Amino acid sequence: MQPVMKGDEIMDLLDEVFPQIHAGGRVYAIDSVLPGEAAVRLSANELHLRPGGTVSGPSMMALADLAAYVVILAHIGPEALAVTTNLNINFLRKPEPGDLIATCRLLKLGKRLAVVDCGIAGEGQEDLVAHATATYSVPPR
Amino acid sequence: MQPVMKGDEIMDLLDEVFPQIHAGGRVYAIDSVLPGEAAVRLSANELHLRPGGTVSGPSMMALADLAAYVVILAHIGPEALAVTTNLNINFLRKPEPGDLIATCRLLKLGKRLAVVDCGIAGEGQEDLVAHATATYSVPPR
Amino acid sequence: MQPVMKGDEIMDLLDEVFPQIHAGGRVYAIDSVLPGEAAVRLSANELHLRPGGTVSGPSMMALADLAAYVVILAHIGPEALAVTTNLNINFLRKPEPGDLIATCRLLKLGKRLAVVDCGIAGEGQEDLVAHATATYSVPPR
Amino acid sequence: MQPVMKGDEIMDLLDEVFPQIHAGGRVYAIDSVLPGEAAVRLSANELHLRPGGTVSGPSMMALADLAAYVVILAHIGPEALAVTTNLNINFLRKPEPGDLIATCRLLKLGKRLAVVDCGIAGEGQEDLVAHATATYSVPPR
Repeated sequence: MQPVMKGDEIMDLLDEVFPQIHAGGRVYAIDSVLPGEAAVRLSANELHLRPGGTVSGPSMMALADLAAYVVILAHIGPEALAVTTNLNINFLRKPEPGDLIATCRLLKLGKRLAVVDCGIAGEGQEDLVAHATATYSVPPR
Repeated sequence: MQPVMKGDEIMDLLDEVFPQIHAGGRVYAIDSVLPGEAAVRLSANELHLRPGGTVSGPSMMALADLAAYVVILAHIGPEALAVTTNLNINFLRKPEPGDLIATCRLLKLGKRLAVVDCGIAGEGQEDLVAHATATYSVPPR
Repeated sequence: MQPVMKGDEIMDLLDEVFPQIHAGGRVYAIDSVLPGEAAVRLSANELHLRPGGTVSGPSMMALADLAAYVVILAHIGPEALAVTTNLNINFLRKPEPGDLIATCRLLKLGKRLAVVDCGIAGEGQEDLVAHATATYSVPPR
Repeated sequence: MQPVMKGDEIMDLLDEVFPQIHAGGRVYAIDSVLPGEAAVRLSANELHLRPGGTVSGPSMMALADLAAYVVILAHIGPEALAVTTNLNINFLRKPEPGDLIATCRLLKLGKRLAVVDCGIAGEGQEDLVAHATATYSVPPR
């Protein structure tokens, strides 16, 4: 499963079609795109934090959803519009202050559905702070 | 199952302990608190919208998570701190422009876990745009 | 949303295409089929029980999956083959001995996906012992 | 995270406390127990098959639930009783005839909750046929 778009191409596309993801400040970056996998970084600002400097649950859900979209786009290309149909997330540990990285793997890239597995961890940390699976409906291509 | 806090008491508490939920503008309101149930409204602003004026998936996840928290707080009271452990959401239809309302019901309020069922719909609409279930860990009380 | 098959027609179809659901004994019955809704009963035998006479988790998952299938078949008719793509279940309380009834509602019956909400309770009981949501992929029709 | 029970000790315990899992024939085996991980095999019989010799969805749910239980028991020991509170499963591909193996990893082993990630694949196959996450409530220990 080879990617057909690079990280900066995907970010350019997101900037164009979903400018709103940057409405609260430019906090997302694509760290890597590999065969079947992508990593997206959240450099949280005050919109994403809870008391104590910990990243909020909804911010982690948004990160998982975006990172899942990135790994799918990377492998189906820019012409196709995918929409989330299901997201399931388990919150495992309270994140420490600092960037969070969501690493998503394609479990399936089918004709109609793509299923993605995402682990979220602090930079350089091994223990996950959250784990999500997401399903996207992908258009015929 | 009788609520022990009213909507405005809960909103005061949220303002105090989670002021960040209003960091992007004051968009959430508690419409009602009933036995075993609560309804929370999202009056979306530009942070929550996607092209075409439709509310984004992450905004619906954040709304479901908040509304689940509200119904739990309403029934366990202000002294207790609950944290989300799992959230599962199905996106059913693209929302039309306008306010969204998440109506959450307590499926279980146990000693350790609370489980909540949430339907999200446009105001006055019958068809759900999303459906979520959430589990919160609740402290001993 | 009107059903196009009755309960006994659906059970005849299941007997024909999935005779294996009865391999361990005839334990499932369709209690009702209504617009957008169906109820399926499990009269558990020793295959489904755990110590103390309580129905096992896997038996409740199987019941939810079957009942979701029944409500979908009831509304799309016999020509179509639907397959489960996702099932999420929360176990809420230990069931007491006796029949369990899964009541499933169609949250969405789309061109490609059907999403169903299922509550499982003991006969005549109000409190749910488990709650599930299931997504089925439905063929073009 | 070191296991405190071996595979055959766990199977002896299951035989004693959950003899019902073998009520339809002895189909489960524990292939391996490693730090943070365990693999459980299903040698399906007629109770688990669908037309065409493919393993049914409910059989995969039961396998994921059992394998998640095995990896938790392996790390908390025999004195503790854990119960499933949530299971979420995505069905990815139709399994080919033959044994299925569920490989489960502990994502978290907390004081109150354990969260497990499970991939199910045919023997020697790389592509998963299903992926599950499960949460167990674990007793104080």
